Amino acid sequence: MTQTMNPLSPAANNSDAGVDVAALGELLLGKWADVRLAARALAGNPELHKIEGLTHTEHRKRVFQQLGILVQQNGVHRAFPTRLGGSDDHGGNVAGFEELVIADPSLQIKGGVQWGLFGSAVLHLGNQEHQDKWLPGIMNLDIPGSFAMTEIGHGSDVASIATTATYDASSQEFVINTPFAAAWKEYIGNAAVDGIAAVVFAQLITKGVNHGVHAFYVDLRDPKTKEFLPGIQGRDDNIKGGLNGIDNGRLAFDNVHIPRTNLLNRYGDVAPDGSYSSPIASPGRRFFTMLGTLVQGRVSLNGAAVAASKVALKIAIQYATERRQFNAASDTEEVVLLDYQRHQRRLLPLLATTYAAAFAHEDLLVKFNDVFSGAHDTDEDRQDLETLAAAYKSLTTWHALETLQECREACGGAGFMAENRFTSLRADLDVYATFEGDNTVLLQLVAKRLLADYSKEFRNLDFGVLARFVAGAAADLTLNKTGLRQVAQFVSDTGSAQKSAKALKDAGTQHQMLADRVQTMVAEVAGALKEAAKQPKDKGAQIFNDHQNDLIEAARAHAELLQWESFTAALGRISDPGTKRVMTRLRDLFGLSLIEKHLDWYLMNGRISMLRARTLAPYINRVLSKLRPHALDLVDAFGYGPEHLRATIATGIERERQDEARDYYRKLRASSDGPIDEKILIQRAKTAAKK
Amino acid sequence: MTQTMNPLSPAANNSDAGVDVAALGELLLGKWADVRLAARALAGNPELHKIEGLTHTEHRKRVFQQLGILVQQNGVHRAFPTRLGGSDDHGGNVAGFEELVIADPSLQIKGGVQWGLFGSAVLHLGNQEHQDKWLPGIMNLDIPGSFAMTEIGHGSDVASIATTATYDASSQEFVINTPFAAAWKEYIGNAAVDGIAAVVFAQLITKGVNHGVHAFYVDLRDPKTKEFLPGIQGRDDNIKGGLNGIDNGRLAFDNVHIPRTNLLNRYGDVAPDGSYSSPIASPGRRFFTMLGTLVQGRVSLNGAAVAASKVALKIAIQYATERRQFNAASDTEEVVLLDYQRHQRRLLPLLATTYAAAFAHEDLLVKFNDVFSGAHDTDEDRQDLETLAAAYKSLTTWHALETLQECREACGGAGFMAENRFTSLRADLDVYATFEGDNTVLLQLVAKRLLADYSKEFRNLDFGVLARFVAGAAADLTLNKTGLRQVAQFVSDTGSAQKSAKALKDAGTQHQMLADRVQTMVAEVAGALKEAAKQPKDKGAQIFNDHQNDLIEAARAHAELLQWESFTAALGRISDPGTKRVMTRLRDLFGLSLIEKHLDWYLMNGRISMLRARTLAPYINRVLSKLRPHALDLVDAFGYGPEHLRATIATGIERERQDEARDYYRKLRASSDGPIDEKILIQRAKTAAKK
Repeated sequence: MTQTMNPLSPAANNSDAGVDVAALGELLLGKWADVRLAARALAGNPELHKIEGLTHTEHRKRVFQQLGILVQQNGVHRAFPTRLGGSDDHGGNVAGFEELVIADPSLQIKGGVQWGLFGSAVLHLGNQEHQDKWLPGIMNLDIPGSFAMTEIGHGSDVASIATTATYDASSQEFVINTPFAAAWKEYIGNAAVDGIAAVVFAQLITKGVNHGVHAFYVDLRDPKTKEFLPGIQGRDDNIKGGLNGIDNGRLAFDNVHIPRTNLLNRYGDVAPDGSYSSPIASPGRRFFTMLGTLVQGRVSLNGAAVAASKVALKIAIQYATERRQFNAASDTEEVVLLDYQRHQRRLLPLLATTYAAAFAHEDLLVKFNDVFSGAHDTDEDRQDLETLAAAYKSLTTWHALETLQECREACGGAGFMAENRFTSLRADLDVYATFEGDNTVLLQLVAKRLLADYSKEFRNLDFGVLARFVAGAAADLTLNKTGLRQVAQFVSDTGSAQKSAKALKDAGTQHQMLADRVQTMVAEVAGALKEAAKQPKDKGAQIFNDHQNDLIEAARAHAELLQWESFTAALGRISDPGTKRVMTRLRDLFGLSLIEKHLDWYLMNGRISMLRARTLAPYINRVLSKLRPHALDLVDAFGYGPEHLRATIATGIERERQDEARDYYRKLRASSDGPIDEKILIQRAKTAAKK
Repeated sequence: MTQTMNPLSPAANNSDAGVDVAALGELLLGKWADVRLAARALAGNPELHKIEGLTHTEHRKRVFQQLGILVQQNGVHRAFPTRLGGSDDHGGNVAGFEELVIADPSLQIKGGVQWGLFGSAVLHLGNQEHQDKWLPGIMNLDIPGSFAMTEIGHGSDVASIATTATYDASSQEFVINTPFAAAWKEYIGNAAVDGIAAVVFAQLITKGVNHGVHAFYVDLRDPKTKEFLPGIQGRDDNIKGGLNGIDNGRLAFDNVHIPRTNLLNRYGDVAPDGSYSSPIASPGRRFFTMLGTLVQGRVSLNGAAVAASKVALKIAIQYATERRQFNAASDTEEVVLLDYQRHQRRLLPLLATTYAAAFAHEDLLVKFNDVFSGAHDTDEDRQDLETLAAAYKSLTTWHALETLQECREACGGAGFMAENRFTSLRADLDVYATFEGDNTVLLQLVAKRLLADYSKEFRNLDFGVLARFVAGAAADLTLNKTGLRQVAQFVSDTGSAQKSAKALKDAGTQHQMLADRVQTMVAEVAGALKEAAKQPKDKGAQIFNDHQNDLIEAARAHAELLQWESFTAALGRISDPGTKRVMTRLRDLFGLSLIEKHLDWYLMNGRISMLRARTLAPYINRVLSKLRPHALDLVDAFGYGPEHLRATIATGIERERQDEARDYYRKLRASSDGPIDEKILIQRAKTAAKK
């Protein structure tokens, strides 16, 4: 429990019971607490830490060696089959994996390429023979490999990749080709230096038919000489904005022959005579099923982004409780940064969002484990999982970048020093916003799903009900347009400001407002797009494009609602009353900040009155000052030690310096040696003149 | 003139006359066009370019050598006196200096430390003797030096720095001391390696009186051995988030004796006997006058942030007109990124803001030159200049970071490659948001000025008018609170959506809305703070703190209004009708985007009706699609060549790749060899079954 004197708002200090930091920490560790703690112990090992200022070649070498340490320490095999030395634990695997980001994001992502993408593709897309043949070498790093999906010309639109794998029945081989420059595989981890094999995604062509994207196991380099095998070319991507411990590069294939059996054939196979077969008849569904097995990449990026946000907030909030600047409240005492309203405004809503993202991630991880363990593995489960992963990954990776930047700026020049972590983490996490699916594209996938659910609901209703629903929606709109609802609400709001703020504090009200917004936005877009479906493709696309921004915003609103629900559900798992009170307030801050962020929508759609809207910001400011005394507890509950934070300004050094400075001035004032201030002399002279 | 086929919005293509790129380019070059062009020619020199991936020690060496090239090329002496080889050209000096950011921001800032801070301090705070003694060596780099103002414990609060310079009349020397750890000079450029001298800011103490912060010329290192002189200690700041070509470090002083005459004594002097004198009686005013001479740092950061934003937008928009992704509108043609509504939403408002910032910067530069040339150099001119510089520097440096990040994400994985500039520029410019005054602190300075102007207005009015004003304001508020004004506006809005959007297109309406918001916000804060002035300091500070966020937002609103005014004034300098039409639309986009950003405020303060507010986003979308065909012209007018852009994706390579890919598929479709898509086979089978 932390109680800090706040000269700017003394009343806020003593009003609350404190937080049970240990219990809250347990709650955050979640279902895979043991794995997470083991992974954190591993991530505390200095041999795994990022060293700032290495050249990219040195950094690459270091990270490759670190992968070996992960293998030795059994840190990365949880998802693989028990028969091969793994433990078939999918949720635990991701929980452990994502914690590695705090050692070095390059290490996390390089490990992700090797085991999460390359190894997972063999595991999920291959048969048992493939697994037995290649997984042991992949697991122990004898086969460093690449996941060659993205091409220069096609990133998030995987279905349109142009690499071909054409079956030659005479030799019973596939022939891999890169038909033009835009089809080069690009940004491929392990491609520039280390990879001796790859899972290559290509259009499978046999007997003159293109069966769409499939995955092929392809040897890239001679394991001894590390020279490319015949027909394979590469280019080093060189320096990137971050993650420079990974050797990204390009790959191209010129008539590269591989055995027929190198097709990872779980969802589609070619017989020796060239005839194609698949357990999934629809090429579209087959494609999405194959890609769906790779959802764990998005899940683990989500978790890593949460972890990085936690580290950043712990560092920045620790510093903000020690650092003093400007003597606003007294002639001799400077104010601690976190006592400034603006500083609270900058950091505490990010803290609330980080908690929301953390609880939502835990729920996502459980869902992921349910699907991949086979416990709940229907088509709908998988679709839910993919939608959730896409929604959360977008919001959380952007949130991490915002948090890292705000923390860096909130720490001033100290925040810019590499030794304080923010800039380095931010540079590395930057690409999380566009890889494993560009966030903007992912949100459109989420929106598509929302629209599909919306029209499914229509399909289950008879036409009369549908007609009524539409009429109701129109009436609703009319009501808002005339401003009647707003005026009505306004009339009921004319009590004290306190009263109208109180209504927004109610969880039911928050939920209703957030949910209403999602439903209304989806319904509005759906209404506008009904036309699009009837039009020729180009006209339809134009109508769709005219609502692209609305669609993306609806998806974001949906994801925010789900995060709010996860946060609220987590409150039910807290038993300590003090903790529950503070955490409920933090959830309120999250909900209210969302409403404030979208306040224009609520106002122009008649969902909130002008008067009530005007009470929101001052009310949020009061919530902030009530949370202020618990800020340090709330970041301590993240459970990261000095070996994870590794930031000079999080060591208490600032408090020591501030204390030393205050002692110096205190002694100076007490002694007769100290110089007197010219301003005071002038003041005295003025006073004397008046007398 | 660029006309691009847009399959998603074909109607938008032919409606506008084009932009006269060359004339618009001239306008942007502004008053110091020749200097700017010369500086760009210099910045195009490969010897001055940043090389990615150097270690910080290599980068530091390279940048120090580059400073020598700047000296040889006469690129950096424009502000210095003609008698010493300069040209007394302050505006031109900054115009040229800020363009160096496109070569390497480290070069710009290291040059800024040497000539803009260290040299400027000697120039503006010293006497002619000081200038003649030190400036030649500073100008030709014989004396690399530091500007030692910031301390670990005090960044933006310069008045509170703790380093002391105590006069010893017996030896006629000042004795410089660092009394505790927090008083170490920190983040000081040239301190870690190169600096052999420094201007050190310290509390001047003589005869037992502290006369506040003054500047002292102090030798740091032996020029030959580069060893610190006795009593001086340093520490290397090592790796930073960016600007690693600069050797930032810490400095501490232990009884370092310097001659009395090393006090830069323009605004305050100590006679041999220790008696203090100053041409400015008030210690507060003296302090602000001294610091005010250093305003050019903020001015030039503002210009550099504009330049970096221009480079980023040229690269990202070039790429967005070539890159294709997803075949939304046809089965065979993929859509160019910039034809997507969301992509327009991401990039074009940033483009509009960059133009606004560019025009505002030009006006600032003229103001700066007026003051420093002595043409308009009253106290009020200086205050205006400082307020403007603080306001613009905050908005523009944040804008540059936002622009660089949005451009990087809009280019996907390619945006993350260092060779495409975004990540590197962003890392370097990150610290612009907190150095030369933390943006958050600077906005509070702006707000203080707004409040002072507000109460000055009160001082000039008699009490009756004051009373009326307050009553009027209260009545105004009541009107809004009852929603009457809104309902009234709403009633007049009930025409077509077109009609209500049209009103917002009017420049007068935009101006009125932006100005009204500033006035209202300032008046509201002023009303709330009236209490604060009457209270004891701690209570007053608490009231002030409760409105800190509102204050900062009022300052931001003020700066946005000024940018809008600069943009609008610039329209008057355009004669070509096509250019004027497009640029007016871009100004509208800027104004409307500001109103959209603050739409919650306009709604809850009854300044816009719900109905009109709902037409805003669709109207902005229409403006975007009308600007879309001119986007490339608008970035081409920035006038940066390949030697400045140095980004692979801005070379046209993407168009070549896309063309090659489309040719390949076109030929494949035309030939009988191409594989047929499984989906088409299934479609055919279904059709056949139906027959």
